Amino acid sequence: MRDKNYAIKGIVVHTPEFETIEYHDNSYVVCIDGECAGIFSELPEQYKDLKVYDYTDKFIIPGMCDMHLHAPQYGFRGIGMLIDDKSSWETWFERYSFPEENRYKDLEYANLAYQRFTDDIVKTTTTTRASIYATIHRPATELLMRKLADAGFAGYVGKLNMDRNSHYGYQETTQESLEETERWINETSEGYGYIKPILTPRYTPTCTDECMEGLGKLAVKYNVPVQSHLSEGLDEIEWVKSMKPEIECYGDAYDMYGLLGTTVPSLMAHVVYPVEKEYEMLKTRNVTVAHCPSSNMGSCGVARVLDMVGDGIKVGLGTDVAGGPNLSLMRAMTDAVYASKMRWAFTERKDDPYYPRRILTVANVFYLATMGGGQFFGKVGCFLPGYEFDAVVLDDTKLKDFVDRPLRDRMQRILWWHTPETIEAKFIKGTMVYDRDRQ
Amino acid sequence: MRDKNYAIKGIVVHTPEFETIEYHDNSYVVCIDGECAGIFSELPEQYKDLKVYDYTDKFIIPGMCDMHLHAPQYGFRGIGMLIDDKSSWETWFERYSFPEENRYKDLEYANLAYQRFTDDIVKTTTTTRASIYATIHRPATELLMRKLADAGFAGYVGKLNMDRNSHYGYQETTQESLEETERWINETSEGYGYIKPILTPRYTPTCTDECMEGLGKLAVKYNVPVQSHLSEGLDEIEWVKSMKPEIECYGDAYDMYGLLGTTVPSLMAHVVYPVEKEYEMLKTRNVTVAHCPSSNMGSCGVARVLDMVGDGIKVGLGTDVAGGPNLSLMRAMTDAVYASKMRWAFTERKDDPYYPRRILTVANVFYLATMGGGQFFGKVGCFLPGYEFDAVVLDDTKLKDFVDRPLRDRMQRILWWHTPETIEAKFIKGTMVYDRDRQ
Repeated sequence: MRDKNYAIKGIVVHTPEFETIEYHDNSYVVCIDGECAGIFSELPEQYKDLKVYDYTDKFIIPGMCDMHLHAPQYGFRGIGMLIDDKSSWETWFERYSFPEENRYKDLEYANLAYQRFTDDIVKTTTTTRASIYATIHRPATELLMRKLADAGFAGYVGKLNMDRNSHYGYQETTQESLEETERWINETSEGYGYIKPILTPRYTPTCTDECMEGLGKLAVKYNVPVQSHLSEGLDEIEWVKSMKPEIECYGDAYDMYGLLGTTVPSLMAHVVYPVEKEYEMLKTRNVTVAHCPSSNMGSCGVARVLDMVGDGIKVGLGTDVAGGPNLSLMRAMTDAVYASKMRWAFTERKDDPYYPRRILTVANVFYLATMGGGQFFGKVGCFLPGYEFDAVVLDDTKLKDFVDRPLRDRMQRILWWHTPETIEAKFIKGTMVYDRDRQ
Repeated sequence: MRDKNYAIKGIVVHTPEFETIEYHDNSYVVCIDGECAGIFSELPEQYKDLKVYDYTDKFIIPGMCDMHLHAPQYGFRGIGMLIDDKSSWETWFERYSFPEENRYKDLEYANLAYQRFTDDIVKTTTTTRASIYATIHRPATELLMRKLADAGFAGYVGKLNMDRNSHYGYQETTQESLEETERWINETSEGYGYIKPILTPRYTPTCTDECMEGLGKLAVKYNVPVQSHLSEGLDEIEWVKSMKPEIECYGDAYDMYGLLGTTVPSLMAHVVYPVEKEYEMLKTRNVTVAHCPSSNMGSCGVARVLDMVGDGIKVGLGTDVAGGPNLSLMRAMTDAVYASKMRWAFTERKDDPYYPRRILTVANVFYLATMGGGQFFGKVGCFLPGYEFDAVVLDDTKLKDFVDRPLRDRMQRILWWHTPETIEAKFIKGTMVYDRDRQ
């Protein structure tokens, strides 16, 4: 579908604001040159001649942004999270993460695994604007970018940097790390459709000061954004401090090299245990936090999402595959609600049955999954005029029971019960990239 | 398949003890007269002539016991749990639970909805031994029992008692409640295959003292077990105390009528906030606790499962549809791990990164889903000799990636990734009740 001027008709749902979820029963969303022109109950005169894709009684939602995801960990999703033997995250890295990621030095393996990953993520509500970690291997990273670009995706992919504390030969020298990264930026800044490079030091424990310093310079030289992990685990935080006793907080370890939203936009995953100085930096710097609730629950913590949003910190949602179990941002949304309930129940409420509840609502998590992450990419995440036209059509026919449910209930049921078959069509920047019935 | 003497071959997984999960690569489980004769790497001489069902390289697990489940709420599973507007449980009852359950006074609706429920639960790991709440309607309850019996299920189904604090005409007089219950017991004690009646006062707020007293007498007169809800929510507990100021704890409200494991076995759902006296009663009485982790997280609490098991309290697992999102006990297992991590992280651990972890493992939740609930029904829940032969065959072919994973990892992946298609076959009390490939 080359023509980017058309309308789609269906039950339109979006969250222009954090507290507001709108349901527009069988309305039109108009796309002009790949941009949204608004939601209309009837097609206005000037749009009367537009082609209309009729999804009457199906749901049309904005594309969702997965703000934190490890593509090379997709093969062992659902494995190792439950921790059979109460083993530590170190065990998880040694048993699962590092050996698996190192397989991607083999391009044949990378081709198989990344193709499966691409085919599967197409059948999710994640449209464009994924922010994806690859491995340290430049060729495999470029292969993944090619596959995602060919599938019509937009967003960022990062070649990992790791020049210390890795395993099984899965490590670079500082020089390799920086040289390969610069070469990769030059090779992928153009020619990969809507897929762009993002600097990706895995985290402080795997990146030397020299590596971080070099990446800070590359960020400025090429104006490339950066992503990493920040304050995910208590043990991790202590490890970072032991490595860099001069810093006041974990965030300093990025900030001292310009990697915390001073020179280029920064995307930080988790932020479960920010100390006050760190928290203040997030409020004032150009940093977006990727909240990963499934992964948070798996690693025994929950980020203070409501506080962060309330204090003006930009927050999006991430699946964190394979720290999270799957590619579904709808699963991440429902887990975000659970996680917020757990945090509230065990902290603020304590044993007071009537303590005012402070938990994430459907509107809140819908916003996080769309607008929240969308901010990082520009005008992305809703159907207000001027926003990029990313849309997903959801068919809940097979989820129905024998009662007519109101729209809000049908939407909740989709969040809980969607399968790949629920995804009927997908539009990215105005282009239809998936059509279930024409597969 | 009428012959109950045979062997099935596959990767046998079971948890004979709370801390022990066994993986027997491609072994035989022998069924003699519907009972398990044990697990064998090679078929012993005396079984050489048995018919063998070959499930080589597929998983064979014991049937799972869903210890708490509201069949008439299946229609709105996945709806209302996220609480769009931070509404209370009262809203949930008024908006979803009561109106939906009251639809079952119409047998035509009950027939449609209970058939869908039966068809769907067949394609789960729940074999037999489900403990199911129906509605106050005797005819619909008997219809559900008929459908489950015809499908080969075993276990308990309860006609609800509610003679106060209900809504929308969904309430009985005390006399109706007791008379209908006695009639129902007489009509269903025989003739419904392996499906038996269980007394089911919804909970104290919806049952007057007279009703509870009458049910206590029926329990003894007909030797029928009882199930209900106990200490699920802080507000519920205060409500119960305000109704019965003379009691020391919620448990007393059941105990004073012989409904807490003194005269007949008792199955109590949730038990999130037991006070000491209550907790002591659970240790000494014939009570099994149904832990419902998904539902617990939804209602902002987590039962102290590890404490209870450690103190010798019998604990099984429940999906609590529609307080929980679906019929999958595997989802309940993985949610139980998350829930235990949340409880540990926010209570015992606090901010000590190296505080010894106390969370549920895969072995633990596998035990809860099989042996834990199985105790309530007799020798049910594993493949030790003398246990009833309930087995589920799981085919993980479609879940595989491009790496050979060890059995423990493949089993975890099934827990996270199973779909109805993963269920290949199901045996209940030695009878094959489901065969995917012959559907």
